[in-house]
Amino acid sequence: MFSKRLKELKPYIPGEQPGDANYIKLNTNENPFGPSPRVKDILNTFDPENLRLYPDPLFKNLRSKLADKYGLLPNQVFAGNGSDEVLSFVFFAFFDTLNGNLIFPEHTYSFYPVYCDFYGISYQKIPLKSDFSIDINSFLKTHEIAGLIFPNPNAPTGILMPLKEVEDLIQRFPKDRLVVIDEAYIDFGGQSAVPLIDKYNNLLVIKTFSKSMSLAGIRLGYALGNEKLIAALFAVKDSFNSYPIDTLTLKIAEAAVSDMGYYDKINKKIIQNRKKLTLDLEQKGWNVLPSSANFIFTRKEGLSGSHVYKKFKEKGILVRHFNHDGIKDFVRITIGTDEMMESFMSVLKTEF
Amino acid sequence: MFSKRLKELKPYIPGEQPGDANYIKLNTNENPFGPSPRVKDILNTFDPENLRLYPDPLFKNLRSKLADKYGLLPNQVFAGNGSDEVLSFVFFAFFDTLNGNLIFPEHTYSFYPVYCDFYGISYQKIPLKSDFSIDINSFLKTHEIAGLIFPNPNAPTGILMPLKEVEDLIQRFPKDRLVVIDEAYIDFGGQSAVPLIDKYNNLLVIKTFSKSMSLAGIRLGYALGNEKLIAALFAVKDSFNSYPIDTLTLKIAEAAVSDMGYYDKINKKIIQNRKKLTLDLEQKGWNVLPSSANFIFTRKEGLSGSHVYKKFKEKGILVRHFNHDGIKDFVRITIGTDEMMESFMSVLKTEF
Repeated sequence: MFSKRLKELKPYIPGEQPGDANYIKLNTNENPFGPSPRVKDILNTFDPENLRLYPDPLFKNLRSKLADKYGLLPNQVFAGNGSDEVLSFVFFAFFDTLNGNLIFPEHTYSFYPVYCDFYGISYQKIPLKSDFSIDINSFLKTHEIAGLIFPNPNAPTGILMPLKEVEDLIQRFPKDRLVVIDEAYIDFGGQSAVPLIDKYNNLLVIKTFSKSMSLAGIRLGYALGNEKLIAALFAVKDSFNSYPIDTLTLKIAEAAVSDMGYYDKINKKIIQNRKKLTLDLEQKGWNVLPSSANFIFTRKEGLSGSHVYKKFKEKGILVRHFNHDGIKDFVRITIGTDEMMESFMSVLKTEF
Repeated sequence: MFSKRLKELKPYIPGEQPGDANYIKLNTNENPFGPSPRVKDILNTFDPENLRLYPDPLFKNLRSKLADKYGLLPNQVFAGNGSDEVLSFVFFAFFDTLNGNLIFPEHTYSFYPVYCDFYGISYQKIPLKSDFSIDINSFLKTHEIAGLIFPNPNAPTGILMPLKEVEDLIQRFPKDRLVVIDEAYIDFGGQSAVPLIDKYNNLLVIKTFSKSMSLAGIRLGYALGNEKLIAALFAVKDSFNSYPIDTLTLKIAEAAVSDMGYYDKINKKIIQNRKKLTLDLEQKGWNVLPSSANFIFTRKEGLSGSHVYKKFKEKGILVRHFNHDGIKDFVRITIGTDEMMESFMSVLKTEF
């Protein structure tokens, strides 16, 4: 009764989402500050009668607002039910094993190999440099590739690739192979590759409302790129689910995009808290990778990551540990409010 | 840059969703009455601060409420971003070309062949009887099948298969092949196959909040069946998108399920309006298939369906026409409010 496809899956395991609110959640890179106050206005004024109708399957209003934000045209914008769905459609549309392997960094978003197994795409992991940064020369010297995907900043390291290096990579990359840059964390101090879109037809940039926009709960992600790439993503969407984004999500996202002043303020505060946490940890002898994201990746000589994770959990704080060779001694810690960071440091000081 | 997979897609074309509200929409089977008033309460009391967090990836509360509604266990319930997404996961998990063709009725939900093309599943369409009802004997005498899917009532015909016949079909069907019954329209006068779930391990029933629950705008569908089938659907979900249902959708759906009295009332009214529309059309010489859904499928001798569609559109009313051999002379008309039905009949009387 079960398909061969099903047996080949190795599902992604998301960070814990405990039902009770007693944990301090520093494990899934959610924004510690709430979304724009304009979201409340939407909830207060929205007429539920509208919910009897299907949403706009083309997301026209949202795409036009996002296009304005980035100086693009609406047909250079695709959107989906979280950047995870957008990524899944990207893997379907562009990465063809007939061309070779998809390449991505050895330590990166662990959903990438899961999509590959889902669609039967072969892949090759490219080792990071010894400082855990991405090695663009290794990307460039790999042959028979179906495409390239990496997050910038990378996760779970938090390390940013400067825009100059990103452009250097795209310039030297085969023109008929797609480069996908997953910019989930770019708003925490990085420079986006979006301005390169009109220059390179083989560049696709993925964004999300879950991190810097503090709207993980509405499930919204989007892709920016050449209009032919976007049209391909619409063809995939229309072969999977005509209406992946619900009406309220569209309205809430449109309101949030109109309030970037608020988001600049909260995300500056996150950058400030990241700097402080990094210094505090270094003072206690922890090694912290240089982060441009809303999390840090850290370890202390002699401690295993799983031990650190368990100790924090006992004390009511969730952090993320990845049981992967090469990063087993690290934990990933989401940047929280002042209060969350103080609780974190206070546990760290007593326990380690 | 584009995959071979992409080139093989034949995307589904959803019914028109015009941006302006000037049309009377009788084309996509939306409920003409709004959702439960409890939805407004949710919007008024929901704290947007919660949206900074990811939703529950297991939808525990909703699954437990749905399980209670149907006398099932929560592990017999899966949910997804609209029944379209749930169906897509079902096609992935259970229909394996290695076993033969997936079978479904010749005239049915036109997304089924689209999913087949998406996942590379071969299929065989089984002709309807001359009265447009489903021929279960044709299903049963087909060999080398990967599984069976059909809507009950069927779309776009609206014709119901009585529960006794459904059980007869399942009983005589190979035990190691899945039977999927898509009950999107069952609440408009049909008898659900859900009570058969504990008896047949190879039965999966699909439901949606888009029709009888009047919540097409929130994107929510679900599947009910044996726990092993449900576990398989979770494995697919976790290989595609960990969080396909957003926080507000979950809350709204939970509130709606708690107000079935309201829904029984509005759906009784739809059944009443369907009866009246059927009589009115028959009086004007139209042939109407016997419908147990919130739409009717109708034609008039000498008129082409595309002509009828165009005439109604000119007068501000959208109906649905399918340009498929065998049903080209039909149009599908969603049952609306008294006022909508009067407008419809008044155009019909002047134009045809």
